[in-house]
Amino acid sequence: METTVGIVGGGPAGLLLARLLHARGVACVVLESRDRGYVERRQRAGILEQGTVDVLRACGAGERMDREGLVHDGIELRFDGRAYRVDLPTLTGGRRVTVYAQTEVVRDLISLQLAEGPPLLFDATVTAVEGADTARPVVHYRRDGVDARLDCDYVVGCDGFHGVTRTVPPPAARRVVERGYPYSWFGILADVPPSSDELVYAHSPRGFALASMRSPHVSRLYFQVPNGTDPADWSDTEIWAELASRFETVGDWRLRTGPITARSVLPMRSSVTEPMRHGRLFLAGDAAHIVPPTGAKGLNLAVADVVELARAFGRLHDDGSPDLLDAYSATRLRAVWRAEHFSHFMTSTLHLAPDQDPFATRLQLAQLHRIADSRHAAAELAENYAGFAPPDPLAG
Amino acid sequence: METTVGIVGGGPAGLLLARLLHARGVACVVLESRDRGYVERRQRAGILEQGTVDVLRACGAGERMDREGLVHDGIELRFDGRAYRVDLPTLTGGRRVTVYAQTEVVRDLISLQLAEGPPLLFDATVTAVEGADTARPVVHYRRDGVDARLDCDYVVGCDGFHGVTRTVPPPAARRVVERGYPYSWFGILADVPPSSDELVYAHSPRGFALASMRSPHVSRLYFQVPNGTDPADWSDTEIWAELASRFETVGDWRLRTGPITARSVLPMRSSVTEPMRHGRLFLAGDAAHIVPPTGAKGLNLAVADVVELARAFGRLHDDGSPDLLDAYSATRLRAVWRAEHFSHFMTSTLHLAPDQDPFATRLQLAQLHRIADSRHAAAELAENYAGFAPPDPLAG
Repeated sequence: METTVGIVGGGPAGLLLARLLHARGVACVVLESRDRGYVERRQRAGILEQGTVDVLRACGAGERMDREGLVHDGIELRFDGRAYRVDLPTLTGGRRVTVYAQTEVVRDLISLQLAEGPPLLFDATVTAVEGADTARPVVHYRRDGVDARLDCDYVVGCDGFHGVTRTVPPPAARRVVERGYPYSWFGILADVPPSSDELVYAHSPRGFALASMRSPHVSRLYFQVPNGTDPADWSDTEIWAELASRFETVGDWRLRTGPITARSVLPMRSSVTEPMRHGRLFLAGDAAHIVPPTGAKGLNLAVADVVELARAFGRLHDDGSPDLLDAYSATRLRAVWRAEHFSHFMTSTLHLAPDQDPFATRLQLAQLHRIADSRHAAAELAENYAGFAPPDPLAG
Repeated sequence: METTVGIVGGGPAGLLLARLLHARGVACVVLESRDRGYVERRQRAGILEQGTVDVLRACGAGERMDREGLVHDGIELRFDGRAYRVDLPTLTGGRRVTVYAQTEVVRDLISLQLAEGPPLLFDATVTAVEGADTARPVVHYRRDGVDARLDCDYVVGCDGFHGVTRTVPPPAARRVVERGYPYSWFGILADVPPSSDELVYAHSPRGFALASMRSPHVSRLYFQVPNGTDPADWSDTEIWAELASRFETVGDWRLRTGPITARSVLPMRSSVTEPMRHGRLFLAGDAAHIVPPTGAKGLNLAVADVVELARAFGRLHDDGSPDLLDAYSATRLRAVWRAEHFSHFMTSTLHLAPDQDPFATRLQLAQLHRIADSRHAAAELAENYAGFAPPDPLAG
């Protein structure tokens, strides 16, 4: 098999890139190692920036999102006995976020692609990318017990942090800049309406907690726990008590509880692979960088990466100019480091480190009070949270 | 001897408080352990916020400052090959800073006080503060070999971080929240005109440096060095070479060099004593809190402390209400922690820690680029740097 752009990974980045390239008239093929059911069940992020929403609409994947997604105009910061609402549109000139789970985005993109193309192969396990630094790289994969190859002009790695493509550039040609965190998120899904209409980010004496939602009937809640925590060690009663102690810190607000339907512990890491290109291999999304989830940037960064790639391949296809492609890594790394910084800021401002000294806690509270008291500090958070407008992937 | 307010320490905080209390009709006495010559020679900070300038003018100490001080409308941040000027008045609605050395402020205040009162005693070494939690505390001091006492209604500790008063509250009645830093500032005075008209804060691969000035003919320069550095270990040539390597990172900017007339190494610390009151003893300035010098907040915080105390004692004197005095510690701690946070932010954003990992450096650069690219991020820095308007010390 051969194509212009071989896309490794059928998560949101790979699927969206395929849609955008298809719209630009650039041939591509998506190879996904898992089966369709697995991919459609993976629980991931759920906060879409305005720019992400706009792109999904532009490529025809916005219909169900517009019907079922929950548009949010703010988030709440809860700390030191105080609750402050960050009003996103007021502080950003009209930008909002939409709560619509990544797994739903993936379903929408898969059904579109299976209906309209380009080719999407499930159960296609990529074993190697060969000749990334030649004019004609090859993606080797195995499917139904048979070895096969995809000959391409370019390869895009969208196969995530544990994928094959990020290890294709030899160690001397890449630098991984990263940071671990001394805590994880214990996340649950519960069949209970959310206790607040908007997300609540809580800094409490017992640590961070986040109240989010999947729908008007399903709550998604997280609280920080030590690394290595086994979710099975917590009873439902203990989980709800811990969450209540972290959220019920202001006024008479009460946490709604209900049956817990899923639970997991998520470690946290910041990591960037530089550059995001090796020859004709381009890295996008988690294959290039991961962020701790506190800023809700992971999915949105992946979308912005493939928007830039779609523009770049579109430019090359339309007038033969590789200028955007050549600039891709530098262009995206600037935006990636903005998001890495913001994600680290949100994480380090809201979590308690195990060995945290009182000075660090005072700094966190001083920062949070400042956000609540200063329009500039609040706007700085709001702009980063709501996200920056990506360029139009179907133009330029 | 007896008075209403006994002021321990004749630095800028104690002297200014005496002026303001005098203007409000509140009797006070200032005890300073050193002689006049020593106090007038002490080299300290030199950046006055707009609010500090306003207060000095209001109490009659503004004449020479207005003649000799250098009004600055901006500072430069230099990092990653880039120079960004933070335009203070544009970003803050007209606020500026004035370069006028603390030692000059002290001279002006001393000559005013010696001419007009209230009493100012040099060489008066305070040995103890007794009965701070009674209605009539006593300040014991020794002068000319003779033990003496000052009976007061209230005592204000303005005797700095190494003074007597901050250790008067018993350990159970105070909490010291602090942080050390793994670097110091090597500071020099040089007989050479400043290389830039405004201050330059440089983040360089070799560490932080700051180009400041004392006058149009005298430069004040600093660069970060390891803790424990002996200034005698550096030749003048080595000092200028190190400074040049940290500043000459953009365009064809060149550092002007000249005879070095003074040198010292300054350790850095953040520290806050909570509360800032014990009975009838009130702590102000460095006796209550110190900041690393990167944000130029130390002197300005001390001024704002005594402005609040002058208001509080004035209120008590005028209508017998202790409300402002009772609120003093809480009122000031909010502002103190804002300044502590900003000073830590400036310090940790601009300095390289000895064991700094590449991720931390990328975060610093992402933060600095953001300040240069975002009006909100720049305004947040500018507002903190130019300072917040203190209340009128002669009213309320």
